[in-house]
Order: sequence, then C-alpha cells, then structure tokens
Amino acid sequence: MFGEVYDVIVVGGGHAGAEAAAAAANMGSKTLLATMNLQTIGQMSCNPAMGGIAKGQIVREIDALGGYSGIISDKSAIQFKMLNKSKGPAMWSPRVQSDRMRFAEEWRLALERTPNVDFYQEMIQGLLLEGNKVVGVKTSLGIDIRGKAVVLTNGTFLNGLIHIGDKQFGGGRAGEKAATGITEQLTKLGFESGRMKTGTPPRVDGRSLDYSKMIVQPGDAIPEKFSYLDTPVLTEQRDCYMSHTSTLVHDLLKEGFDRSPMFNGRIKSIGPRYCPSIEDKINRFADKDSHQLFVEPEGWDTVEVYVNGFSTSLPEDVQFKALRSVVGFEKVKFFRPGYAIEYDYFPPTQLKHTLETKLVENLYFAGQINGTTGYEEAASQGLMAGINAHLKLNEKEPFILKRDEAYIGVLIDDLITKGTEEPYRMFTSRAEYRTLLRQDNADLRLTPKSYAIGLASEDRLKRREEKERRSAALVSFFKKTSVIPEDINPILDRVNSSLVKQSDKMFKVFSRPNVTMEHMMELKSVSDYVAENDLGREEMEQAEIQIKYAGYIEKEKNNADKLHRLENVKIPDNFDYRKLKSLSFEAREKLEAIRPVTISQASRISGVSPSDISVLLVYMGR
Amino acid sequence: MFGEVYDVIVVGGGHAGAEAAAAAANMGSKTLLATMNLQTIGQMSCNPAMGGIAKGQIVREIDALGGYSGIISDKSAIQFKMLNKSKGPAMWSPRVQSDRMRFAEEWRLALERTPNVDFYQEMIQGLLLEGNKVVGVKTSLGIDIRGKAVVLTNGTFLNGLIHIGDKQFGGGRAGEKAATGITEQLTKLGFESGRMKTGTPPRVDGRSLDYSKMIVQPGDAIPEKFSYLDTPVLTEQRDCYMSHTSTLVHDLLKEGFDRSPMFNGRIKSIGPRYCPSIEDKINRFADKDSHQLFVEPEGWDTVEVYVNGFSTSLPEDVQFKALRSVVGFEKVKFFRPGYAIEYDYFPPTQLKHTLETKLVENLYFAGQINGTTGYEEAASQGLMAGINAHLKLNEKEPFILKRDEAYIGVLIDDLITKGTEEPYRMFTSRAEYRTLLRQDNADLRLTPKSYAIGLASEDRLKRREEKERRSAALVSFFKKTSVIPEDINPILDRVNSSLVKQSDKMFKVFSRPNVTMEHMMELKSVSDYVAENDLGREEMEQAEIQIKYAGYIEKEKNNADKLHRLENVKIPDNFDYRKLKSLSFEAREKLEAIRPVTISQASRISGVSPSDISVLLVYMGR
Repeated sequence: MFGEVYDVIVVGGGHAGAEAAAAAANMGSKTLLATMNLQTIGQMSCNPAMGGIAKGQIVREIDALGGYSGIISDKSAIQFKMLNKSKGPAMWSPRVQSDRMRFAEEWRLALERTPNVDFYQEMIQGLLLEGNKVVGVKTSLGIDIRGKAVVLTNGTFLNGLIHIGDKQFGGGRAGEKAATGITEQLTKLGFESGRMKTGTPPRVDGRSLDYSKMIVQPGDAIPEKFSYLDTPVLTEQRDCYMSHTSTLVHDLLKEGFDRSPMFNGRIKSIGPRYCPSIEDKINRFADKDSHQLFVEPEGWDTVEVYVNGFSTSLPEDVQFKALRSVVGFEKVKFFRPGYAIEYDYFPPTQLKHTLETKLVENLYFAGQINGTTGYEEAASQGLMAGINAHLKLNEKEPFILKRDEAYIGVLIDDLITKGTEEPYRMFTSRAEYRTLLRQDNADLRLTPKSYAIGLASEDRLKRREEKERRSAALVSFFKKTSVIPEDINPILDRVNSSLVKQSDKMFKVFSRPNVTMEHMMELKSVSDYVAENDLGREEMEQAEIQIKYAGYIEKEKNNADKLHRLENVKIPDNFDYRKLKSLSFEAREKLEAIRPVTISQASRISGVSPSDISVLLVYMGR
Repeated sequence: MFGEVYDVIVVGGGHAGAEAAAAAANMGSKTLLATMNLQTIGQMSCNPAMGGIAKGQIVREIDALGGYSGIISDKSAIQFKMLNKSKGPAMWSPRVQSDRMRFAEEWRLALERTPNVDFYQEMIQGLLLEGNKVVGVKTSLGIDIRGKAVVLTNGTFLNGLIHIGDKQFGGGRAGEKAATGITEQLTKLGFESGRMKTGTPPRVDGRSLDYSKMIVQPGDAIPEKFSYLDTPVLTEQRDCYMSHTSTLVHDLLKEGFDRSPMFNGRIKSIGPRYCPSIEDKINRFADKDSHQLFVEPEGWDTVEVYVNGFSTSLPEDVQFKALRSVVGFEKVKFFRPGYAIEYDYFPPTQLKHTLETKLVENLYFAGQINGTTGYEEAASQGLMAGINAHLKLNEKEPFILKRDEAYIGVLIDDLITKGTEEPYRMFTSRAEYRTLLRQDNADLRLTPKSYAIGLASEDRLKRREEKERRSAALVSFFKKTSVIPEDINPILDRVNSSLVKQSDKMFKVFSRPNVTMEHMMELKSVSDYVAENDLGREEMEQAEIQIKYAGYIEKEKNNADKLHRLENVKIPDNFDYRKLKSLSFEAREKLEAIRPVTISQASRISGVSPSDISVLLVYMGR
C-alpha cells in the first residue's frame, strides 16, 4: 500500500510531530505524518496558550528557523502579552492566548499546504529495523511503511494512563485512546524507559462564572506577535481573569487527599515541578493561604474556559466542591474534570545532540517522549529532529545549536548531557547566556544558520538583513550624532539623571538608565532620522537594546568564561546551601539531597542551572 | 457534583443528540449534553454532505420546526445542488457539500449559544432508574447525573467494532473509543437489541488525484439554501468530480473477497442497502461493469477528499490497489482506509410515536440506535425526541407528525410500526403523500405547529405567514387577471402549446405543461405585479407550484383514500411479483421471500413502501 519509501516518517501530530514534519518536508524530504487521528493534529492538550517566560523566546527561535509555531500562534491568537516588560530585555517573553479550535485547524491546513507532507491515520505500533537501523514503521493493521528515518513524537500517548481520584483508565488524552507497542519494542532493543506524569485542570462553562468578582487581565495595549514574517497583528483581544484559592478551598481539597493518586502512592512517576497540581501546591507550600488562578477563554466564540493553576487529579467531586468555593466560581459548571496522566518516556541521555538515538540509527525522539513538558519545548525538539533527520539522510553536517546561540541549544544540551528526572521545562535561568538569547534577536541569531541549511526562506533572510542593517545604522547615528545641553537636559532632568554641561554623543546619554528610545525620540534630529528612514518598532527596539545593554552582554560573556575555567572547584562537606538565598528553590533541594563534591558534579545535577553554579562560584570567591 | 436535576439529559453529540439538546433547551428544559468528547460534537462520521433525495426535504422540515441542521448546513456549505430539478417539485431535493471542520464548529458554537444547554464530557455507561422510570445517567467515573428524561443517541458507538479485512478492533469511529455498558443494562431490563453494520470509504489526498481525467460536478449556477431564515447564500462554490470503477477495478477488489468480513461470515449484521459497500455492489449487481464514484472535497481549504461510492471493508491493500486502478486515482494516496463498523441498535418497534421507549418511562431513543442510517434521519429523530421529552415533562400533548404532514412523520411511523431489519433510510417512495411533503413548503406545513408548542420562533412564523400571504396573493392575481392572445400566443407558440383565440385567465394558461413562471414574467402585467410587490424567488416558486401541481395534489389524496379502503385485499398464493416491474427491487425481494397473504400484511413488511402497495392494488384491479 505504501509502495514508496519515505525519507522521514513522523509519528504523532502534536507540536513536536507537526514541526518535525514541516521542517523535514520544507528542506525537501518526502515526509509522512502518521497519527492516530488526523482530526487532532495540532491539538492543544492542556492550556490554550503559546509562549510565556523562556517559552516565548523558544517560539521566536522556532520562527526564526523557519518553523511554523509562531505563525500558527499569531493566526489563532486572541490575546497578546509581553511578559516581564518591566525587567531587562533578556527577560521579555511574548505569550499569546490561543483559540484552541483555530490553532489546530491552522496547523492542519499549514501542513496540508506544505509540499512533501503526506498524511496517514492509524496507530503506529512498531518500528521496522534492519540491524541497528530503523527502516520504517508498522501500523496497527500490520501495514509496513518504509522510511529512511523515523521521528517519534508520542506525547502522553505511550501506555497513557489517566487518573482521577481512585479511578484510572487507559488513554492518551481525555476521551482518546492510548498507544501501545512502541515502548515494549524499544525496551527489548535495550532502551531504558520510565514513566512521567502530567496533569490538566478542569474545563468549565464560562457562562457559569461571575467575572465581576474577578480581576480582569487584559492583553497588551499595543499587542505584538511571534512571527518575524507578515502575520496578522491583533486588532481586538479577549480578556482573561484572575481569581484566588483560599484556606477554605485548600481545606476542601485536603478532604480528598486520601483519595488522591498523587498522595496514596498510586501515581509513582514524577510530574512537572513548575506546573504543579493544586494539591501539590497546597502540600509543598503549606504556609501559603492562597494561590492564583487564571481564567483563560478557550477561543473567540466558545464559552469553554481553562482554569489555569487548578490542575488536579483529586476525585471529581472534590475538584468540584473546592472550585465552587473560589470567588467567582460559586456556580461553576464543569465541562470535564481535571486529571493526571502517566506515560512512558525515554531518558534523553540516550540521544545524540541531533536527537537521534544512540542505539538505533536514523531514529529520532522529540517532545514528551524525551521527558520534557511544554508545547514550546516539544515543538522546538520536533523542528530540530526534522532538520537533522533530513540533513543526515543527505549526508550533511548535523545542525546543532550551542548554548550561547539559542534556548533550543540549551534545552537539547541539558537533556542529552544531564538527562532529567522530572518533566523538563525551560526557564531563562537555565540559559547562562540569556542576555544574548533574547526574543527580539532570534532572527538575527538564527535565520542565517537556518537559511544556510536550506530551511529558512530567502524572504526571511532578507527581512533579517534589513532589520540588522537598519538598526545598526540607527546605532551608528546615535554614536556619531551629538546633542546639546539645551535639548537633552530637560529630558535628563525629568528622569532624575544628572545634567550635561556640554554637547555629548547621543549614544552616551542614551546609555544612561531611565533614558529610553521614547525620550530620545523627543529630539528632533532623532525623530527626523526615524521618519526619513521609515524605521519600525522592531528596528528601533533592536537599536535601543544594543545601545543600552551592551555592557550587560559583555559582562555575561566574561561570566561564562569564568564558569568554564573554574569548573572543578571543591565544595566543603557540610556546606550550608540555605545561606545562598539566590539559589533556586529546586537547586537548594537537590544540592542538599545529593551533596555534590565538586562544582562540576553539581553542574551535572538536573535542576541545578548554570546560574546556580555561578552563585556557588561567586560565594566561593572565584 | 451535579447537584441540580436536569430536565433532559442527552447522551451523544452527533446529529441526533445535538438536535435533541437544542430542541429541549429552546423549549425551556434545563438540558445536559453528555458526550465522550466535546471536541467531536457535530462530527460528520461519513460523507461531508447534508440533504439529498428525501433527506433534503427532512432538513427543510427540521428547519421549519426550529431545528438547527439547516442553519448549520448553510453556514458550512461549500456547494449547493437542487437534485431532481428536471422532475416534479415533489422530487426536488436540496443537497449541500459541507466543510467538515466548519460544520462541527458551527454545531458546537450554536449549542453553546443556546441558553439552557450545559455540556459534560465523559462516557455515559448506565442509566439511573426508579421503578420503570429513568431518573438520570451514570458516568464512567461513577458520577450520578440526575435528569427527568434521557435521550440516548449513541450512533455507532455502542459496542462498536471496526472491521478492515480480517482485522477487527473496538471503536465507535476510526481513532475513537467504543461505548460500553448501556446495551448490557437495557437488555437486562428486557429490551431486545441487535447488531447493525455500516461502513465508510477511504479518505484520500486530493493532491494525489488527476482531476483533469474526471468529470467536473459543479454546484448550481444559482445556489439556494436550506434554512427559511436569513442564512448566507453561497457566492462561490467548490467543485466535486466524478469517476467510475471498471471491470479491472472490480477484478482487483474480488481478489480480496476471501478476506472480506462481509463475505467470510465475520460480519453477520446487516448494512444499509442503499449505501452499499463497493464489494456489495459488485456482488449484487454482477452484470454491471462500472459504478460511479463521486469525489467530494472535505472543505474549503483542506486537501482531504471523500470517495463517495467506494465504501469498503476489504483489506486495506486491496482497497488501495483497486482504487489506484480508477481513472484519475492512478497515484492516489490514502489518508485512511475505508472500514465497516458493527454496533448495537434496538428494534424501534419498542418505541412509542414520541420515540419514548415502551418499557422505560421518560427514556427516548434517536438516531442509529433505532436502526436508521443517515445524518438527516438521525437529526430529525433527535429533534422529535427532544421536543417530546420536554412536552411530556410539562404534561403537554405529545407532538406527533402524521404521514401526510412530514417526512419525519413517515420516518417515525415506519420505524415504530414496521421496525426495520436493516439500516432504515428515507426515500421519497416511502412517503405516500410526497406530493404534499415538498421541500418548498415545509415551513407552510410545519412552522405553525412548532410555534404552537413553543419551539419555532415568532420570526419564523411571521416569515412563513408573509410567504403564504404573498404567494397566495400572486395565485389570486393569476386567477383574476386575463391575458390577451396577442400577448400570450408568442409564448405558447415557443413552447409548442396550442394558441388561444380569445382572452383567458392567466391561471388557466399557466397551468399548461411547459409554461413556466419565467414565461409568465415576460408578460408586463405579471412582471409589474412582481416588482410592485417585491416578490422573491421563494414566493414566486410557491405560487407556481400551487398553480401547476394542484391537480397532482388532488389525485394523490384520492390515491391515499383508496389505499385506506382497500387495505385487506388477499394476494394469491403463487403470485408472481416479477411481473410487476414498477415494484421496487427491495419490495420484490422481500415479497418473494415472505409471501404475505394479504395486502395489509405486505404493507407491514419493512422495505415494502406504500408506493409498492399502490402498485399491488392497481394490479389487482382495486
């Protein structure tokens, strides 16, 4: 039935699988996307949102590389927010709320419009092997589909087991079947596998909520977007809302703890630390009387609402009773309860930097199967696996992003060198060069690399060259143009910066804290330059960041150098980590438990980030 | 968790369930729609089309009654055709191709916008009973949801078993789980249950087809629509295409017959005679060298294509090889193979005219669970069950449509009085009063009745009254206005009708064959009247039909009277049914097999239609 031999077969149509298929096909590989259900391609299994802290940077990187996640997110966005805008630009993180139906539909149609992508709906239950090489997949009907490379992106479906209270049943997602066969075959081949756990909150009827009692969370007044291409900018947005749990809610939830699969030992696998269930939050942060809940609409028109922060696998009656005690939720109606799901993953230390497995040639893993959590983490792995599968088949050099080049590089390096004992989520703190890895410059960093390997389009490259050229010209303009005291001092006075006594280069004044591009634009020569050159928001922002943060970037590079030189410093036996308040909570926990002998050993512990290592180094005077 | 007691709980979110929920809620019942997957509400399991012969009439009736199927179909249409336009108006049958994704989305959003409809996602595994009354449902998590009435619309999900070649696996639809529990409980309660079978063709990649080798099937030049309300009219349409099987294709298919679950005894249940699989067609019509295949796009943008006419459960390799031998399909790629599915149904003789079960009070069945096939048949039953559930709870008279009032009346009367041994599909031939039951007058027939019970809106009623008033005024105009020979004879000459010698009433000339409204509009007084009164297409068409077919309608009524009087005529023992060429093929087969003693007995045999009975009566000289 499948006479032709595909170049790349992608198993799974979620964020990872969809990006893998798109990348391989766009580079020229004949690609098959095989999934249990073609109608759930691009389905958002959990929250209806893309991006967020560190994750928004990843989406921008995917876009810069020619992936689709940014474009799809822009087309299906209902609200945009640039998070952390009050902090430095390394922390700025774009995030959108998505229309869930639209998101999936846009993914499906984008893949259909991609030449070289074929589709096939059936459960893939095994791999075809010749020696230590994968040569295709086997479907549940017993069909052999030949492919030179295979990318597995099974998400939560491999032997998925759903838990709600003391009930459990097989399933890859609520209302969907689990997938079987793959794990069994891989473990026979010598792969180590494990179980992880994730969860999702109840979905509720927005008509049953009293929003007047909640705090409105509107989108940005001037919404931006993800893609560096000409995707639409939001002209209207939907609001989110915020409410809080209370001690009453916590007490009601605690009544179900004895029936909680998390606490009674039924769920043994580890869930995502930074996406904890509500019962987990109550348990771990017993001193907190309240947790935030974000009420997120599932789309433009639907009344379905996602209760972000209330992920739970407590019995459904407990979920319900407790949620009804949250302000604004007094009359809440459930569309479906929250649940936890356990699924198989394969410790990612079994992979190369290309995401190819060490044991089986031409077999790649991407997404939750590697022990990660998050749409963005999954999508970026899919993209890299698709790229590398194509490159290897064409005997090209692998495409590996270094830790100072991209969050994606950090992600994959972390996974394959440190492994992960719990679902791995990206944070800015994991990136030691995060001042370099900003959301505003992902195109500057990555588009030329992707163009060089044949993925990013020429249009993308040209846009990026233009942006670079025009923002650099603006920086030069500030460097060579002077400003006289009469013009600049009123501004400096306003921002409480010391006045200048004689003319100075604009660059120097602009570098001062509190002086922004907005202020500089008050100078006629600047606004004239901008107008004459028709500069856009992005170019001006780029110039501003490069001028104002040049110092930070230099400093970061020096820190990184130090890190490399001082890697083997010993840690005293009885070192008290609690003294170091700047260590992350997770790092402190892990370091106290494992008590590493050297900084080098410490740096290999999952959850101890390079930033934590810097803190240790600084404390030890190095 | 469900503290409140619902009035009506609808189980299932397909065509039947969605209409049932909408109807009950719109009449004022607090309604819960419970389904295994909220994302598949309004999912078209099989072909992406609504309406067709007799079915289009049903959609118009649903719309006239205030159901949603017509509105949803209009909003998601990609092509419109009025079938049988060359025949009399009783045969005119509207049909649309639908955008599958849009159709489901419109249904979901329409239900969300309906006050009184709540939603809950979980498998319903049992009923709550008190004595012989249903009082709610039980979910797979063990949640009791109380409801005063329950409508079951389980479609193909009850113990669904999918067959492809010699493989079989549980499932309610490709890629979806089967539902369990309900049948087992109902049979324990004394219900008789059976198995039926249906099937679906492969879905293929439109990019792999060569449309230049096929016959284009465009929509109507002037597309109409289903709803009597202001739904959009298509301004552009997508083409369908036609191809044919050949002896080569048939031979290739026959190679798989020994592995066919239809022929090797694995599938024992009966499938829809008028929606046969391709292997069934080859088998039953062995003398035919070719069968038509209609190539139907699945939506505006998707490349997925439905191969209408190629339903099959042959092994997937046989499906593929054979389809590749069809002209235009030489390079076809499959999205998924066709399959057959067996599922539980309950012989509908166990129901009252309201679709309430005789055994359990306040329990209603609608759709495939009653042994029917077809979206329209299902939707109309759902509507009627929803209406009657509401009426009974409010101690109102049941809402029963008679055989001379609606196709829906014929459908339900057939089901509950004759039962059905194979999936029941509607035909114009099943309706003995079909000249009355036209697609153009469903609003005239039904909207006042529905308004009277509180379902159809006042807007609907007013539109209907206007249409009736204005078309009746036009008829009067033709009755009282004369036309002179000089004006009418050129027209009569053109249509080969004998000329008039003196002035005559327009009505009389208009009644002649070949003279159409278009011709009459050539008369200045007519076009002036139409312009002055701003008459629309629908009103003019209504007047035309009432004028030109008045005689047929009268005749039909007389036939019906005869049928009633002569019902108990004896049929000779050795009567040779083959002599009666006007008997339907199905009727001949059944009559020969069962050999009824009286016409009355004959009329109760499923598949022997009132038209067949008329034929028998005419032959016996009565």
